Amino acid sequence: MALPRLLVRGLAWPGCGRALHRAASASAPAAPDFNSFVTRTNTCGELRSAHVGQEVTLYGWIQYQRQGLFLVLRDFQGLTQIIIPQDEAHSHVKKLLSDAPVESVVRVTGIVSLRPPGQENLKMSTGDIEVKVETAEILNSCKKLPFEIKDFIKKTEALRMQYRYLDLRSFQLQYNLRLRSQIVMRMREYLCNLHACACSSGFVDVETPTLFKRTPGGAKEFLVPSREAGKFYSLPQSPQQFKQLLMVGGLDRYFQVARCYRDEGSRPDRQPEFTQIDIEMSFVDRAGIQRLIEGLLQYSWPEERGSITTPFPSMTYEEALADYGTDKPDTRFGMKIVDISDFLRRSDIQFVQNALSYPHGTVKAICIPQGVEGGVSKQLRAVLSCWLELNYDITVSLGIPLILAQSRYLKNKDLESLKESAKSQFNQEIMEIICRPDGSLKSLLTKFLGEKQQSELIQALNMQVDDVVLLAAGEYKQVCSALGSLRLESADLLEAAGLVLRDPTVFHFLWVVDFPLFLPKEENPTELESAHHPFTAPHPSDTSLLYSDPTKVRSQHYDLVLNGNEVGGGSIRIHRAEQQRFVLEKVLKEDSEVLSHLLEALEFGAPPHGGIALGLDRLISLIVDAPSIRDVIAFPKSFKGRDLMGNAPDYVTSEELEPYHIQVSWPLAEKEAKNPLT
Amino acid sequence: MALPRLLVRGLAWPGCGRALHRAASASAPAAPDFNSFVTRTNTCGELRSAHVGQEVTLYGWIQYQRQGLFLVLRDFQGLTQIIIPQDEAHSHVKKLLSDAPVESVVRVTGIVSLRPPGQENLKMSTGDIEVKVETAEILNSCKKLPFEIKDFIKKTEALRMQYRYLDLRSFQLQYNLRLRSQIVMRMREYLCNLHACACSSGFVDVETPTLFKRTPGGAKEFLVPSREAGKFYSLPQSPQQFKQLLMVGGLDRYFQVARCYRDEGSRPDRQPEFTQIDIEMSFVDRAGIQRLIEGLLQYSWPEERGSITTPFPSMTYEEALADYGTDKPDTRFGMKIVDISDFLRRSDIQFVQNALSYPHGTVKAICIPQGVEGGVSKQLRAVLSCWLELNYDITVSLGIPLILAQSRYLKNKDLESLKESAKSQFNQEIMEIICRPDGSLKSLLTKFLGEKQQSELIQALNMQVDDVVLLAAGEYKQVCSALGSLRLESADLLEAAGLVLRDPTVFHFLWVVDFPLFLPKEENPTELESAHHPFTAPHPSDTSLLYSDPTKVRSQHYDLVLNGNEVGGGSIRIHRAEQQRFVLEKVLKEDSEVLSHLLEALEFGAPPHGGIALGLDRLISLIVDAPSIRDVIAFPKSFKGRDLMGNAPDYVTSEELEPYHIQVSWPLAEKEAKNPLT
Repeated sequence: MALPRLLVRGLAWPGCGRALHRAASASAPAAPDFNSFVTRTNTCGELRSAHVGQEVTLYGWIQYQRQGLFLVLRDFQGLTQIIIPQDEAHSHVKKLLSDAPVESVVRVTGIVSLRPPGQENLKMSTGDIEVKVETAEILNSCKKLPFEIKDFIKKTEALRMQYRYLDLRSFQLQYNLRLRSQIVMRMREYLCNLHACACSSGFVDVETPTLFKRTPGGAKEFLVPSREAGKFYSLPQSPQQFKQLLMVGGLDRYFQVARCYRDEGSRPDRQPEFTQIDIEMSFVDRAGIQRLIEGLLQYSWPEERGSITTPFPSMTYEEALADYGTDKPDTRFGMKIVDISDFLRRSDIQFVQNALSYPHGTVKAICIPQGVEGGVSKQLRAVLSCWLELNYDITVSLGIPLILAQSRYLKNKDLESLKESAKSQFNQEIMEIICRPDGSLKSLLTKFLGEKQQSELIQALNMQVDDVVLLAAGEYKQVCSALGSLRLESADLLEAAGLVLRDPTVFHFLWVVDFPLFLPKEENPTELESAHHPFTAPHPSDTSLLYSDPTKVRSQHYDLVLNGNEVGGGSIRIHRAEQQRFVLEKVLKEDSEVLSHLLEALEFGAPPHGGIALGLDRLISLIVDAPSIRDVIAFPKSFKGRDLMGNAPDYVTSEELEPYHIQVSWPLAEKEAKNPLT
Repeated sequence: MALPRLLVRGLAWPGCGRALHRAASASAPAAPDFNSFVTRTNTCGELRSAHVGQEVTLYGWIQYQRQGLFLVLRDFQGLTQIIIPQDEAHSHVKKLLSDAPVESVVRVTGIVSLRPPGQENLKMSTGDIEVKVETAEILNSCKKLPFEIKDFIKKTEALRMQYRYLDLRSFQLQYNLRLRSQIVMRMREYLCNLHACACSSGFVDVETPTLFKRTPGGAKEFLVPSREAGKFYSLPQSPQQFKQLLMVGGLDRYFQVARCYRDEGSRPDRQPEFTQIDIEMSFVDRAGIQRLIEGLLQYSWPEERGSITTPFPSMTYEEALADYGTDKPDTRFGMKIVDISDFLRRSDIQFVQNALSYPHGTVKAICIPQGVEGGVSKQLRAVLSCWLELNYDITVSLGIPLILAQSRYLKNKDLESLKESAKSQFNQEIMEIICRPDGSLKSLLTKFLGEKQQSELIQALNMQVDDVVLLAAGEYKQVCSALGSLRLESADLLEAAGLVLRDPTVFHFLWVVDFPLFLPKEENPTELESAHHPFTAPHPSDTSLLYSDPTKVRSQHYDLVLNGNEVGGGSIRIHRAEQQRFVLEKVLKEDSEVLSHLLEALEFGAPPHGGIALGLDRLISLIVDAPSIRDVIAFPKSFKGRDLMGNAPDYVTSEELEPYHIQVSWPLAEKEAKNPLT
């Protein structure tokens, strides 16, 4: 989050950005003011020169205190400089405030005064004034802190989480949580109030149960033992079944800011509980859902993050795989994957011929420009080109090997690590081609290529001087995936070298559509599993294929991608019982008994319906450019699923387990080593 | 819910009440209309004579179909009459619509026409028009229903819950869920948008974790096994700790529509998961929270339920107990408890003297008027008096025993059942006194009372002719509780006999304050437990008593009562670590280790703070006058905690339990009888 971070680094607590007051602009009949219900007259971010002469009462935390002369008082809204009286009559107040440790909570009452000329602080919204204290009270003292409450103070993640309530006082977390609250409120306004006719609000906010039962394949669902022996509730991964049942129930338009649960053990940047904006509509098609979501995001988008343009571009799954090697392309920069099979088909390169002899064989490549293509601006490229040329001369004249100069941003070791990564992650060999300053190609392949082939290749890949091409031959999906991964790794390397390839203030939304409905199971490729979930409807053009060749059926699933991250997904659902039963029983070979209630519901006049869910934590973290979703969650768990502040999960006594008819099966080693319940 | 029920009983699906469109009145810049994103042109509640001549496309369920001539199409918004074409050219459409079973989902396209003169239906909002079908499509057929989708069709609760998605199509549930959604949205507007300064919204909507750990005394918390052997999460009963930690974190004003969990086994009209409006503020006192909640409820109150007056009246716990025998008085009617100890102190009545000889001995009574006192209006009382007098003459002339006439509403058997109830529930003997038509008293006690004492008693109890007084002597709290319970039972009896004592359109809010901070433990009265929870702050006037005589300390807890139901409760919290530690360790004798994170947080500059939680399910059920909170929850559980639709909780395999290191300890009988996992 470039802007706020910069602001925070200065002395000023910046109050809040523009986005933070938009919610206040809603029509507010006789709105009570912000200091209602409490005895303060003002917040610490509020006072200006217009308040000079007023007596005010502020409550806040001592951010800083200097030699008994002044202190800086902080609340959620800002900072105010407080002048400690030095006269005898106020000696009590002076002692009180001088002795109070930093981060103690105080009440001060005093008179707003202009700061002496020249002492104004332009970086502080209250920088024109100071408050001359008359009376003060220490409401609660603070013991020695484990870390300073300043954003620029580095502290370990574990320490931050252990003292989360202290970390929450930082500007960054206050900002993130407040912005999150406001974005969600704007989304609610859009869904509840805007899509309304004269008679009834459009979307109904319906709360669905979180104590349910296992869904088929719900291996990632937490269990909750019930008081009935052997019976367990399950915490669902989404309200999927309930929202479909609401459509069968005629609710027409449902939404919920839904808490969901997923037990994945230890995975980085995942949380065992998370939140999604969950939406379902009757009588809708894919385009309807897409327009709804575009409107929703545009309406709730924070002003200070710029504006977003709708409709969002759309891409099929096949295109995404072919051009970006992934189903969640980051379209903020180029370096797209290019198919060069046809250029090399007539070459004598053995591994290329080998790859192309297989039915799904292909040869593809990405061209890594010297950091400018797909980057910020042409001006910058011009500047960089000059600089590179200059550098090139220097390196040559100094006898530094040419490769270093050619790959100013991508070093030799970078290339090696890229190739290594493709090998280890995808078992994919990578060949590089470098475009020399004279325009000729440097590669192990060049000797197999004629001049015409070389120039065709340069043209196809749009190679410029110094560009590096990574080439892969092999099975189609493997080649695409490997190059897609290298594309992102290269971008990381280029940015680590100082290029701005993915501007954090730019937001590229993208719809990815036409996914396959089924995929071969990883553990047994002759069997099929749902690419998303078994309720996804087949693409209308492919319905008949469902019964003849289900592997070829595209689905009506759609993903919403933001800057290369999946931030949402949904589908038009199957609404006919016989089709749903066929998918479950004949294609997926699952026991449909566990879904009998849903199958039966579809038989009682279920309307055609579809929906979507947006991953709120991820979306907000991208909007505020937070490094982790933990930075947009008030009390996140560690990557091992632990609450480091409250120490959850924790041991319970066997008496507490009794009503639930369960007992712990201690792993043998542990059982012998200790009895943790004593 | 008197009004909507009446409307539903007529043919008309009433569209919606006025409350349902208030949400739409929020400023809506270029609002997309309600039929956005879908291919219908209108909803089934929308068409009026102004639409005549238009071609429209409607989607909905077949509510009713008659002889292939017409049908009534229903969606969430209303009903439209559809005329089936009879000409040869449309024979296909006619067959389609005539053959479709009731509750099938169809699309119809046709022309809006005026109904023939005299055939308008005034009870239907679309009653002026009908739609002459041109084309139609059956989107999904409906098999034979387990019950009719009509509010007046009685069905068992179990059947309703098994086919909840069908029950949801009823007007009543649609109305309840939509109103709930709108009330919550209005609450959010009040909290997020209204209490805002120029820079930041007032209340921050913060999501707190539901996977936490056991709180002390958290015997009612569901457990969630984790992947760490022997360690369990717990589903908290409220976000209490987290909201206090948010205040320590400087969030200033927090709210959340929070999902909470409580495992109480089988209890009528409780749900294992429920929702509360959870609020916390820093630097606030009791009055501040009360004014906030009054404003919140007034702002979000549905228009069609009348308006509510603020501030709400307030009563101390002692007053509530003395006057109503309960901490949640229903103040919609009188029949208050009257202390008559002083009038009887000089009498010779043995059991009275006996009771008064004990330190907490008392004699109290309630006077049950002939149903009018505290009832609707004086006019009605006048009418009833006339009628009663008339009746009296008749009964006397017919030789019917006087008592029947005297107790026109309270029969002899009613009196017996009241006395029985006091005996069985409270072990309390009850004596009755009846006021004869001549003004004299009929009771076993009268012979012990002089004329002056009798007339004093009549005056003290404000007895009128035919009134029945129930008298109890004994220990103060027992007497109050018994009479408080009889007061409500009498009201039930009077209403069963046809009196309107508690007008369902009247809403009496009441604050109950100054609760005791601690209560003797039921199982061991020499030990103390928190009356509410251990974080409640002592009353400022009683702070010093905390250290000398904790049993006498009043708390800063407050309850919000609506029509005799507790709908909210909160308190100012302890914000100093040493006081919190004293309460936990010295008064409650609890192991404070499990709360060490909270105690430590209080040491790092915790601000004074307080809050409240409103029980949303209960509040909404009172607003819509639903018999159960199940009627305001989309997918409620049975009183045994079961989801009868999806069959949760359910058995899981022992393989599924393995990652959680638990196994089922089958009760012996069950273990032998069956193995449910096969």
